[in-house]
Amino acid sequence: MGSLSLPEKIEITEVCPRDGFQSVKKFIATEQKVAIIDSLAVTGVPVMEVTSFVSPKAIPQMADAAEVMAEFNKRWKGKVTSVVLIPNLRGAEGALASGADWMNFVISASEDHNMANTRRTVEESIAEMKKVAELKGSTKLRVSAATAFACPFAGPVPPEKVFRVLDAAMEAGADGVTLADTIGTADPKFVTGTLSAVRRRYGSYPFALHLHDTYGMALANMAAAMALGFASFDAAAGGLGGCPFAPGAAGNAATEDMVNMAHSMGVSTGIDLLKVLSAVRAMESAYGLKISSHLAATGMGLPGQG
Amino acid sequence: MGSLSLPEKIEITEVCPRDGFQSVKKFIATEQKVAIIDSLAVTGVPVMEVTSFVSPKAIPQMADAAEVMAEFNKRWKGKVTSVVLIPNLRGAEGALASGADWMNFVISASEDHNMANTRRTVEESIAEMKKVAELKGSTKLRVSAATAFACPFAGPVPPEKVFRVLDAAMEAGADGVTLADTIGTADPKFVTGTLSAVRRRYGSYPFALHLHDTYGMALANMAAAMALGFASFDAAAGGLGGCPFAPGAAGNAATEDMVNMAHSMGVSTGIDLLKVLSAVRAMESAYGLKISSHLAATGMGLPGQG
Repeated sequence: MGSLSLPEKIEITEVCPRDGFQSVKKFIATEQKVAIIDSLAVTGVPVMEVTSFVSPKAIPQMADAAEVMAEFNKRWKGKVTSVVLIPNLRGAEGALASGADWMNFVISASEDHNMANTRRTVEESIAEMKKVAELKGSTKLRVSAATAFACPFAGPVPPEKVFRVLDAAMEAGADGVTLADTIGTADPKFVTGTLSAVRRRYGSYPFALHLHDTYGMALANMAAAMALGFASFDAAAGGLGGCPFAPGAAGNAATEDMVNMAHSMGVSTGIDLLKVLSAVRAMESAYGLKISSHLAATGMGLPGQG
Repeated sequence: MGSLSLPEKIEITEVCPRDGFQSVKKFIATEQKVAIIDSLAVTGVPVMEVTSFVSPKAIPQMADAAEVMAEFNKRWKGKVTSVVLIPNLRGAEGALASGADWMNFVISASEDHNMANTRRTVEESIAEMKKVAELKGSTKLRVSAATAFACPFAGPVPPEKVFRVLDAAMEAGADGVTLADTIGTADPKFVTGTLSAVRRRYGSYPFALHLHDTYGMALANMAAAMALGFASFDAAAGGLGGCPFAPGAAGNAATEDMVNMAHSMGVSTGIDLLKVLSAVRAMESAYGLKISSHLAATGMGLPGQG
């Protein structure tokens, strides 16, 4: 008791161009996507989830994934690490052809959500992920365990279900693993329990957290995770986001809110907070995107404000 | 590491009728205030900050304090504990005449904010508080240390400035003390530091926390405080609130968000969450108040929703 032990620095992955954009119904023109990506890339964020290679029937917003990645590579290759989300082998082929630095293969820890999200059993998704791992070559593979804490259909998810996905990911040679609170119902007690169990089982393997702020607990969960030494987090500028196949899922933890709390606690991110707010204000004013972060609500980043 | 140690139950004080209403510019008619208080009293909340006895010139919204308390007493005396805020001796006279269970005397830990809020030095406010303590009789006295973590003018507030207010409160025989994050800039690391210092100095004295959610850190701070054994929190239904003399102060931590997190973590509150949401929806639809909680944003409590 007396002080929290925290990492000196954390790594934030900007997922607005993937998780944020996919939640916007009206198709965002490719050149607008690229302009927003540019505005986010200049914030100093080290990693960006740029797009996803998914069926355009399932998620029409991501139909221009190859073009978006081509534009990203022209501008940011070697400066900002790129990640693309993939749900299957076909997505991996698109990802590999695109020159992305990382592929992010999603498997839900919860059987029910995996079926809703991918129309596959967890076992089938694991088998598919193994095939992807064999193809990956020098491209890095991240495996994201969706619904790692709670499922919109099945409720709380016990760590054993998460272990099943993580065991398979590590056996297949994944370079990193993400635990996702897909619907934002995880609380700091539950997060502390699962993350402690994960640490006991896997030690210092490079884990990341993907948190949603549906119930306002994203920063509480981030603080709980940092207190256990977790130092890699997804975040979406403007708090955009939501899972199209998870009822009730609201926005991601906003990049600006996470960066603000981290800096306030003396944890560095390498990100310029005012540049994030500038990007977010433009997303709102130039492209009509709905912003929902706490920092944006204070008026910060508006003309004439701090 | 492995699990958070938390209180079994916490006590929430509903401050919407005071801190919430005072932030609403258009005067809320007394009968509307009373109707909202009724809707909040039936949620099971054990304590309510009902109004404040302040200068109607400074805060016109609270001009009907005596009437509101009279109506409260007719309906809820003996069922819900009442608190009224007071800034000075004159307020105490109003409070004592009103039959409130508790008076809540506010002194800012920060000299600059105390001057802006009350036009007094901290020393002068402490002297005034001592006079109030001499008058209190069987009415209980709470002393709230405003800007206990940060000041909108002076920045971070060191624990020593908080001790000055708390020492005086305890010497004067205060029955309880509240530490307020008036502008919502406190983070879990800072809160952990100050609260740990407070515990070391004062032991198990009955402390409460008053948190604002300006930067989205209210629930993170609540979780950090609960992990240290703090078990009493202010909250405002609908997330209403803000200090009229603290630039940038936004809403209080919303009752529904705090209750949801507490219950999710297995911490009981005695409050019926759906009744809070029902009250909040009526505040929005019947009285046009601006609601800003995370739970309200999910649609929970709307007709046809869970």
